[in-house]
Amino acid sequence: MELTIDQLRTLWKKNQEEILNDYKTFLQFKSISSEPEFKHDVLACADWIVHFLQELGFEVQIWPTEGHPVLFAQNLKAGKDKPTLLIYNHYDVQPVDPLEVWENDPFTPTEKNGEIYARGAQDNKGQCTYVLAALKTLIKEEGKLPINVKLCIEGEEECGSAGLSHVLPQHKTELKADYLAIVDLGLEKPDTPALTLGIRGLTTMDVEVKGTHTDLHSGSHGGLAYNPNHALIELLASLRDAEGKITVPGFYDHISIPEHFAAKLNMTLKEDDYENLFGVKPTGGERALPLRVRNWLRPTLEINGIQGGYSGAGFKTVIPAKAIAKLSCRLVLGQDPKKVAEAVSQHLTAHAPAGVKVHVHVHPGHGKAVITSPESQVVKAFAKAYEQLFQKPCHYICSGATIPIVTELAETSGAEVVMLGFGLPTDNIHAPNEHFGIDRLEKGFLAICLGLQNLEKEE
Amino acid sequence: MELTIDQLRTLWKKNQEEILNDYKTFLQFKSISSEPEFKHDVLACADWIVHFLQELGFEVQIWPTEGHPVLFAQNLKAGKDKPTLLIYNHYDVQPVDPLEVWENDPFTPTEKNGEIYARGAQDNKGQCTYVLAALKTLIKEEGKLPINVKLCIEGEEECGSAGLSHVLPQHKTELKADYLAIVDLGLEKPDTPALTLGIRGLTTMDVEVKGTHTDLHSGSHGGLAYNPNHALIELLASLRDAEGKITVPGFYDHISIPEHFAAKLNMTLKEDDYENLFGVKPTGGERALPLRVRNWLRPTLEINGIQGGYSGAGFKTVIPAKAIAKLSCRLVLGQDPKKVAEAVSQHLTAHAPAGVKVHVHVHPGHGKAVITSPESQVVKAFAKAYEQLFQKPCHYICSGATIPIVTELAETSGAEVVMLGFGLPTDNIHAPNEHFGIDRLEKGFLAICLGLQNLEKEE
Repeated sequence: MELTIDQLRTLWKKNQEEILNDYKTFLQFKSISSEPEFKHDVLACADWIVHFLQELGFEVQIWPTEGHPVLFAQNLKAGKDKPTLLIYNHYDVQPVDPLEVWENDPFTPTEKNGEIYARGAQDNKGQCTYVLAALKTLIKEEGKLPINVKLCIEGEEECGSAGLSHVLPQHKTELKADYLAIVDLGLEKPDTPALTLGIRGLTTMDVEVKGTHTDLHSGSHGGLAYNPNHALIELLASLRDAEGKITVPGFYDHISIPEHFAAKLNMTLKEDDYENLFGVKPTGGERALPLRVRNWLRPTLEINGIQGGYSGAGFKTVIPAKAIAKLSCRLVLGQDPKKVAEAVSQHLTAHAPAGVKVHVHVHPGHGKAVITSPESQVVKAFAKAYEQLFQKPCHYICSGATIPIVTELAETSGAEVVMLGFGLPTDNIHAPNEHFGIDRLEKGFLAICLGLQNLEKEE
Repeated sequence: MELTIDQLRTLWKKNQEEILNDYKTFLQFKSISSEPEFKHDVLACADWIVHFLQELGFEVQIWPTEGHPVLFAQNLKAGKDKPTLLIYNHYDVQPVDPLEVWENDPFTPTEKNGEIYARGAQDNKGQCTYVLAALKTLIKEEGKLPINVKLCIEGEEECGSAGLSHVLPQHKTELKADYLAIVDLGLEKPDTPALTLGIRGLTTMDVEVKGTHTDLHSGSHGGLAYNPNHALIELLASLRDAEGKITVPGFYDHISIPEHFAAKLNMTLKEDDYENLFGVKPTGGERALPLRVRNWLRPTLEINGIQGGYSGAGFKTVIPAKAIAKLSCRLVLGQDPKKVAEAVSQHLTAHAPAGVKVHVHVHPGHGKAVITSPESQVVKAFAKAYEQLFQKPCHYICSGATIPIVTELAETSGAEVVMLGFGLPTDNIHAPNEHFGIDRLEKGFLAICLGLQNLEKEE
């Protein structure tokens, strides 16, 4: 029996306290996937989800990987004549530093003005929470789900999804589905419904520049030693021209974005709106192009970290023995992550000045860009859910961000993809003071419930 | 009565154990002047020296400054018909990071193959130790010193000597001397006697590049936000051309080094010898010029530290809210530290790209370059001491390093300057695993004793 949006709102109110308690428990796990010291916290978090799903009657599998385990769960009680939706979330989070900028402990969820502040509050524990809440509530109140549901919740999204990528081929049968919902995206504005039709790909690498055997006194050796800091900044500066275009040969090769796809997107972004939210005008990227083209339809190369020598209080007149940088490239349709990483690596090592050695380590995790069609069944079902919820036409947008595993997961499952979520650009994901609104937890809950019902009817 | 070098060697042997004990005690103080958390350790170190000198019968004064105190002490028992030598040392040390590269705790002096490893082992506690040991031994064994001796031991050499500079004008009477020995220099090779005729000046500054209010997700904002890491590396790269010349307008203005001065210097430095010691060829600085010209007679601009975003284990796809660098310029004769700092600061702020804010903070401590003449009485007296000690002609060299206070101290004291010491380029000063040889402690002890005796005769 189909529930109306008002009935669903009543169910939310009835269960809100319990849902928020689950949410806060989930947020307390320090499931930072990229830092080895948090391995046990990541496992404890996985274990918590496993028990949560088992209590709901899901059949749960833990797929071990060389890194953190993938959690798979299914509830096929809707029956063979109903479609199957595979939902993707992740339980790992980004590192928390710079810790001193956080206004509360990142793993002690703290409510302020209806927003919950914690690492992972949005990305992706908040978005995973409303999925779990919707499933739990429908099972508890209705006895079963309107369609068959499979869940794939991984623990390495924030470090490249290498483990899930590796085990996918072994689990083609389990993952088989009609539809695949990637619940890790967002809206542009709180009051405008939007589904994401495209996300960018990713490749990441570490660059190390080594000079002399040891750190040196910058007076005694100044004019003699080639300072690795100098070599590093010169190499990094050589990656980009004055207009913000990447100068690496081959970087932009094979890019191909269908015109009819770009035509469907709502590309509005005002410089002033950006400045109001973030404090400065958006002057990065390829400055000759419109903002959303730079952000959605063109690749980037960002220096995510740089470190060399002494940067503490006071001063230390040192020429360091080495300097490092961490680079990531966001990629668009047609670009192969491995080839791009190879081209950047090649450029950096080829331009190393005499007197230093340059080594580039490309990280194993990476992802291709993905686009979907607004004409597909699953996008239409969720667009309708969003329109029921917001009482407005649904926009189609892209995200500049990456969910590394989408392409492979879509191929393995054979499913039509929809990318959705209730993040906002101001949520501070990957940054200090990440937060997510309780109102958006409710919207997410409603959207999932409505989306499942709409998919039942569409079959 | 003049002591022969053999008699002095016998005195060293007799007192060596006690001298090494004093040395190790001195090294255990964490007197890092540039890091505020070590304030109490710096004071404890000063206090230890005060008691040491008082026990020797020196009249000691503690000159407070806004930073760490200056220690002044005098022993004028040689009488008015004898000359007065003012000796300069410092009791502060550089920071110790990267701590993980040290093979022993930097403040637990550790002996290996006749070398003592500790922060400050050479710079300047080792050099100060043999001065104190020479004075203590001569007073203990001979009853008095051959000439009048004043000591000025400061606690802020490693952070620019702002305090001593500030209090100098109040202490013109106390500091008055015929000769001034700056005991903070070195040799080029262990077996070649050398006095230092010139040192470079210094100015240091912090550069901060600020972007958005907060760290951002590098996918969601890539192509929009101007990454402060990019702005910083572009700005720093713009400071230097392909030949290693600094591009800042005015940077090289007013440089004037007398030709007859340069002609006196032993400028030999072989690329291969440098590579053997430090692992790579000396390819830094202005590459069109000879090595020692670049290192001694030309200014430099070094990036001593750079930091922005995430540089830990794993990866964090962040666009940081800010990035910083620490720069220092070594200066030569004719360059004014304040004007050079202003020119660099001007260049950096003028070239800031739209979308970031650049702020440059010039540190208060700075120093001008200094040169001395091999014809002066005090240089001749110590050159003779070195020749007695090594049985070889004394070389004249420069140092690329800086002792910020030398010019002002020479002016205030009215003294002729000699710059000497027993450091070696391989001592790892300002770096992990700093060390100094017990054989060089002995040589320093002998050189100071012989120098004092030579000055007595020269009057």
